[in-house]
Formats: sequence, structure tokens, C-alpha cells
Amino acid sequence: MIEKRDAQSDSSDDEFQLSQHDLDAVNRAIDEGDGNALDAVLEPVHAADIADMIEQLTPPRRRQFLDLYSGEIDGDILSEIDESVRDEVIEQLPREVLAEAVREMDSDDVVDLIEDMEAPEQQAILAALDESDRVAVEQSLTYPEYSAGRLMQSEVVTAPEHWTVGETIDFLRQEDWLPDQFYHVILVDPRRHPVGYVTLGKLLSSRRHIALRDITEDSFRTISARQDEGDVAYAFNKYHLISAPVVDDHDRLVGVITIDDAMAVLDEEHEEDFLRMARVSDESHVSDGPLETARQRLPWLVVNLFTASLSALVISRFEATLAQLVILAALMPIVASTGGIAGTQSLAVAVRALATRELTGANAKRVVLRELLAGLLNGVGLAVILTLAGGLILGDFRIGMVLGMAMIANQVVAAMGGVLVPLTLNKLGLDPALSSGTFVTTMTDMMGFFAFLGLASWVLI
Amino acid sequence: MIEKRDAQSDSSDDEFQLSQHDLDAVNRAIDEGDGNALDAVLEPVHAADIADMIEQLTPPRRRQFLDLYSGEIDGDILSEIDESVRDEVIEQLPREVLAEAVREMDSDDVVDLIEDMEAPEQQAILAALDESDRVAVEQSLTYPEYSAGRLMQSEVVTAPEHWTVGETIDFLRQEDWLPDQFYHVILVDPRRHPVGYVTLGKLLSSRRHIALRDITEDSFRTISARQDEGDVAYAFNKYHLISAPVVDDHDRLVGVITIDDAMAVLDEEHEEDFLRMARVSDESHVSDGPLETARQRLPWLVVNLFTASLSALVISRFEATLAQLVILAALMPIVASTGGIAGTQSLAVAVRALATRELTGANAKRVVLRELLAGLLNGVGLAVILTLAGGLILGDFRIGMVLGMAMIANQVVAAMGGVLVPLTLNKLGLDPALSSGTFVTTMTDMMGFFAFLGLASWVLI
Repeated sequence: MIEKRDAQSDSSDDEFQLSQHDLDAVNRAIDEGDGNALDAVLEPVHAADIADMIEQLTPPRRRQFLDLYSGEIDGDILSEIDESVRDEVIEQLPREVLAEAVREMDSDDVVDLIEDMEAPEQQAILAALDESDRVAVEQSLTYPEYSAGRLMQSEVVTAPEHWTVGETIDFLRQEDWLPDQFYHVILVDPRRHPVGYVTLGKLLSSRRHIALRDITEDSFRTISARQDEGDVAYAFNKYHLISAPVVDDHDRLVGVITIDDAMAVLDEEHEEDFLRMARVSDESHVSDGPLETARQRLPWLVVNLFTASLSALVISRFEATLAQLVILAALMPIVASTGGIAGTQSLAVAVRALATRELTGANAKRVVLRELLAGLLNGVGLAVILTLAGGLILGDFRIGMVLGMAMIANQVVAAMGGVLVPLTLNKLGLDPALSSGTFVTTMTDMMGFFAFLGLASWVLI
Repeated sequence: MIEKRDAQSDSSDDEFQLSQHDLDAVNRAIDEGDGNALDAVLEPVHAADIADMIEQLTPPRRRQFLDLYSGEIDGDILSEIDESVRDEVIEQLPREVLAEAVREMDSDDVVDLIEDMEAPEQQAILAALDESDRVAVEQSLTYPEYSAGRLMQSEVVTAPEHWTVGETIDFLRQEDWLPDQFYHVILVDPRRHPVGYVTLGKLLSSRRHIALRDITEDSFRTISARQDEGDVAYAFNKYHLISAPVVDDHDRLVGVITIDDAMAVLDEEHEEDFLRMARVSDESHVSDGPLETARQRLPWLVVNLFTASLSALVISRFEATLAQLVILAALMPIVASTGGIAGTQSLAVAVRALATRELTGANAKRVVLRELLAGLLNGVGLAVILTLAGGLILGDFRIGMVLGMAMIANQVVAAMGGVLVPLTLNKLGLDPALSSGTFVTTMTDMMGFFAFLGLASWVLI
């Protein structure tokens, strides 16, 4: 077993969340209904940590907490609260607190907050915004879900392409609406097409008379507002982007995406793939109750009842063989389960490689061939072990050989299935992480039982 | 099945890699040994895309490519090439090209390049660096692998805490060693302790006479050079950091970590978890050959032979029962495999929640209870289906009930194992993603066979 890559796990874990001491103080304040004490404890705490704490409270406790603290919930905290409990929190917030919080938020955070709301609630929040912010949010909402247009913020710092460093700095000093965080000044032509960008570092280190167009970055890349957010995150990671201009269908600048949002998307996409591979809804949260949890997991369990029944059907064809040699019943899961592991291994590598674009049309043939050979090699290796074990433990080399030969067949099927199933799903535009596992283990189970019992009927009986 | 979250999958995939047209031109140039044509095709291509292409070539093809192109490999391309093929590329690079490439790189990229090299090769590269860069790299290497100290770059932009905006801008305009990308000016006291930082946006939008200390950011956070890199990535994502100062054991500033590096670490950590859950070495790459692939996967397959033998042992205890009622052999995998799915579901949620610190000592008890109840609920649900199916399909409600009762027991074991095993491994400082799967499926297999065959012996025989 490999040790966790974590020199100081305990201390460092604590560093990024509320200390037990603070938590105790919060709990005391809730018990005593002491709002002032609560404010005092949470005053120096980062919004992200307050949001985490709110998520971890039990629902009744959360209500008590909000009774005391809801007046202090601002835009920063609200945008950090996970979707799973956000509706609950919003419902309990006084109207004016919610309106104030929303006014503080960047347009992308407002979009994230309201995109899943019903129309009346959406309207109530939009009404609290300034005219220009409302227009920006409404424009974002016209783009598809999970698109760059939903992820972008509309607050963008631009400069005409003919400006100098000095003009730009003077302009920035005059403006008071600048976003909290920005990393580039985007050069636009008179029709608002972005033509390049200048990093703030370059702007600061260049003399006033220098023209902006002489210090733009080489690698300039715009993103279409219709682009899928997963692709956006991929591009940020691949090209080390910090922020990127977003353009509409006419190549006009409509917003900017910053790397912190791209990082959050990357994190979510990974979580989705991870959970989907394990046949768990990506809607599942640690804060869900038992009923909700059971409901999310049941569908795939029922699917498995059906696929397992197919295996049962295969086995039942060999009842006569099993009746003659009952030990076969004990041995048959070995072939099936080892095939299942191999299929999962091959599958995980393929799903991951599809996600990172390392597995493409160009090398698919080579990867399939590689899997075939690797499956064959491991099948033979396992077959040798099984033949020897059969002879030494069961005292019957023939059973060992039958196990081994079935294993070779199943390892090849597993390796092939593990790569061909996700490739096919991907080609069909379906998410390979979602249902590949069921296909592949059904294949390896059925093949495992069939090959072993079939060979056994032929060779041993 | 859910459709891929990707409105324009095909076109957008292409956007972030070399076009087929470019690839064809590259292949033609390689075939014709035409270095100039190669340079011309690749001239406008991003370093990251060139690196991807190099990774995807077969080894002999890669050698041909490097014969023609190695003179053009610069620091940008070199730092983008994946570890799996990097050694191969470096070996083929002319000494002076390598030296020149390394001199262009930021100190963190040099550390990443040489940290796994043998001492003589390391020395050769260090010798190519300027004195100050060499010292920086050597200092980084004194920190543990996977620590913040290895991830940081030593090129930091600092200002004395008493400076004004004007003084800082004048300073930046004079310096010619500034890093390519920087996002903050870090305020340090005379002993080089960081005391705050100012975003470049604030610096640009403030008037010259303003004191830096009046425009520092509220949320200022330093990172210990010994901190685990996974924790660093977590903190960047959680607190929306863009860059963060790194300090040594005496709280002195030694470097800075930027979000693009944190994003890359987050991506790697996810990949590791994803592959480890599927029992694949995180060293595996799409470019590996069949022998290497087989070698990486065999160990867990052999482990599975042993654990599956334990199940075989359980089944063999019931040979007498199976001999009397052979249909049990066909039905028993249903209970075991559905338990395996449920265990994997519970496990994936727990492993993920441990990674995101959503599952902590504070809520572990509640989550375990939740899993217990969810397992019980689903067990009962599946039992009802099985009892009915047993009656309707097999014409024997008693077999259906035995299946159902065994299923309830196994669902509870699966749900409990899925959360308790990773919690225990985590507590022991081991990586819960790595070996939990084996423990849990061994539990669900053994319990599945035991409960079903045991109950069947008792009720049906």
C-alpha cells in the first residue's frame, strides 16, 4: 500500500477549515441563541469556511443558525454555498438581505445562483439588480447550460487598440466600477472585436508612451460563448490561461472567464466522472439524508439485478455439468471477478484518456491493439498461476487448465470491452463514464461463466 | 443514459489539438526528412500542442521526428511534455539545445524536469543555469517531493511595506528580470516576512501617492513550503487564490505558487484517485506499450485471484446444498454482484468526500448512519423485487425470499464497508482510493455467497 502523499495530513487538513475550537464556540452561540457571539466568532472567518460550516450542519441546526445569522450572509458566502443546501438557505434569508447579497456578486455568480430557479424567484432576484447587471445576467442566461456564456462574467476591462500604456493607466485610475479581480486589459477594435490582450504585469512594467499593441501576448485565444464549459476548463489547464475573452456568434466581446472559475469546473467534471464510473448520481452530496441517498443509488442496483440475471441464465444452461461436478460452482466466480477487475482497469484508462483527449481517432487503433495484447499477456500469466494452483491445491491440473483457459478468453474480452465500449459511447455522443461499467462487467461476467463452464463441460465431463 | 454535456463535441475537441491537416503535413515532412517543412508547419502551433503530438507518436516515429526537429525544442515545449516520454526526448536532444531550453524555464519547471533524474544528469542541467537560478532550483529540491517548495517558483515580485503605488510602478519599469506572469506585488518587512499583497489591478487603478499598505487584499494567506501540494491545490480552489506566497520554516518568503500550477496539481490528484479506484497504477499512460500495460495491471489481478479464492472457499462449504439444488449456483452471483455495486457506490461517495474534506470527524457518525439506513432501504426494495421475481419467474416464492433476505444483509454490509473501510484507511494515513475497492468487494462477495447459501441451506433444504 502506498502512503498518502501528505507529510502533515492532520495539521494541514485543519488549516483549511474551521478549527474545533471555533466550531464549539459556534455551537454554544446557537444553543444560547446569542447572535452577537456568533458574529464575533465568524467575523475573521473566510466566506468559504462559513459556507462549508453551513453545509455540514444538520437541517434543524441549520435553521437555528440562520435565525441568528441570516442578516450577515453576504454575496461572498452565498456564492460559496453548495447547491445542495442553497435553496434552503435562500428561503430563510430576509428579502432585503438576499437583494443586497446579490447586488455585491459578479454577474457569473448571480447566473450560477439563479439558473436553476423557477421563473418567479428568478424575477425577484433580477429585480434587485441594477439595470446593467440585470441585462448582463439575462444575456448570460440566453446561452445553453454548461456553456462558456453561463460561466463568464460580463465585467470586462477593455481598451481601444490604439491606446498607449499611459492612457490605459489614466483610464483605470478614473474608473470606479472595475472588477475585483482582473488580469488582462483586452484590446478591442471599434466594433468590439477583441484583437489581443495585455497582461497587467506588462502594463505596469512598461513606460507610458509604449503602445498597447506592442506589448500584447503572443498566445491570444478567444472562447465562443457556446463552447462547453468542460472544454473551456480543459483549454485553461492545457494552455495555462489566466483569463480569456468570450465572444458571441459575431465575434464580439461579451465577457471574460477567469481561471478560478475554470478550475472549479475542472473539479466538478472530475467529480462527475469519478462518481459516474461508480454508478452514483453526481447529484449526491454528503449532506443528503438516507432516503435521498437510497433513491439515488437504487436505479443502478436494479439495472444490476437484470444484468446479473443474464449471468444466472448463462449458468443455468450448465446445470447438468454443475450437478456432476459441484466444485465448479465454487470456482466459477474466480474467472468472472478477475475479468471484472481487468475490464474496469482497461475502462478507467480509456475513459480518462478520452477526457484528456489523449485517446483520439489518431491512436485508437494502436490503443485497442495494445489492450488486446496486454489482456492476452495477463491472461496467460494468470492461467499459469491457476493451472499450478489447480494441481497443487485441488490436486487436479485439468481443472486448473480449464480455469486458466477460461481466464485467457475472459481477460481478452475484458481488455477489449474496456476500451471499445467507451470509444463507442463517446462516438455516439454519450458520456463514456456513465454506463460503460455496466456493459463491461456484464460482458466479463457472462463470458467468465460461459467460458469456464463451457470448457469444463467439454474437457472434464 | 445522459447525453454528454457537450453541445458541439466534435468541433470543439478539434479546436484544442492539432488539426488532421497539420498532422498529415507533419507526417509527410517526417517521411521526406524535410526539417524546413516541419518547422514551417509547427511554427504557429502552441507548445502544448507540439508536446501532445510528440507524446502520441510511436517511439520509432518519435525518434525520426526528433532527428529533424530537436533543434527547435525550447523550454516551453519541454516543460509541456509528459513524464512518460520526457526522458526519451531529453536523451535525444543535443546538449546545447537542452541547456538553452532549461535556461528559458521558470525555476518550478526546471525542478519538475530534473527532480526524478539521476544525480549526474541533474548536475549537467544545473550546470547550464545561471548562478541565481541554480541556487533557486537547489533550494526547491531541499523540500520534500510533492510539497509546495517543489511547486513554487522563486521569481517573486516584492516591495517594502512602506512604498507607495508610484514608487512600485517606477521600480517595476526599471526591472528587466520580471517573471512572465505575476498577479500580485508581495509586501515584505525588512526580514523578508510577507505581510500582505496588492493585486496588479489595484496597483494600476490607484493614484501614485497611495500607500501600498492601504490597498492590500483582505484575504492574505501564506503557504508553508513543506505543505503537501494536494492541500495547496485544494486551498487555491476553495479560496479562489490566484497566487500565494510560500514561506520557509522561519516565515521568510522563498517563492510564489500560481494558480495554473495549482490547477495542474488538482488535475493530477483527480487522475490518481480515478485510476487508483479502478486499481490501475497512476503511472500508466496512453503511450505505454502492451508489456508495460500488462505489468502495471497484473498485481491487482493476482490479488483478486486470492480474494476470489476466499469466496470460492465460502461456496465450497455449501457443496452439499448446491448438489441438492443446482439452481442456487446460478442465482448466487446476483446477490454478490449487486452487493459489489452498492459497495462501490458507497465507497466512491466516501472517498470523494474525504478528498474534498466534506467527510470529517465531525460528521462521520452521521454519514455512517446514513449509509446504514440507505443500505437497509435499498436492500428491502431489492428484496421485494427478488421475491416477486422468484415467484413469477422461478415459480418458487421461497427461493425469491431467500435471495431477498440475503440481499438485505449484503446491502447493509456493502454500505457499511463502503464508508468504514476508507475512513479507517484514511485514519491510518493510507490513501483510501488505493485499496478500499479490494477490501469492499471481497466483503460483499463473501457475504453475498455466505448469506445466500447459508439461508438456502437452512430454509430450502
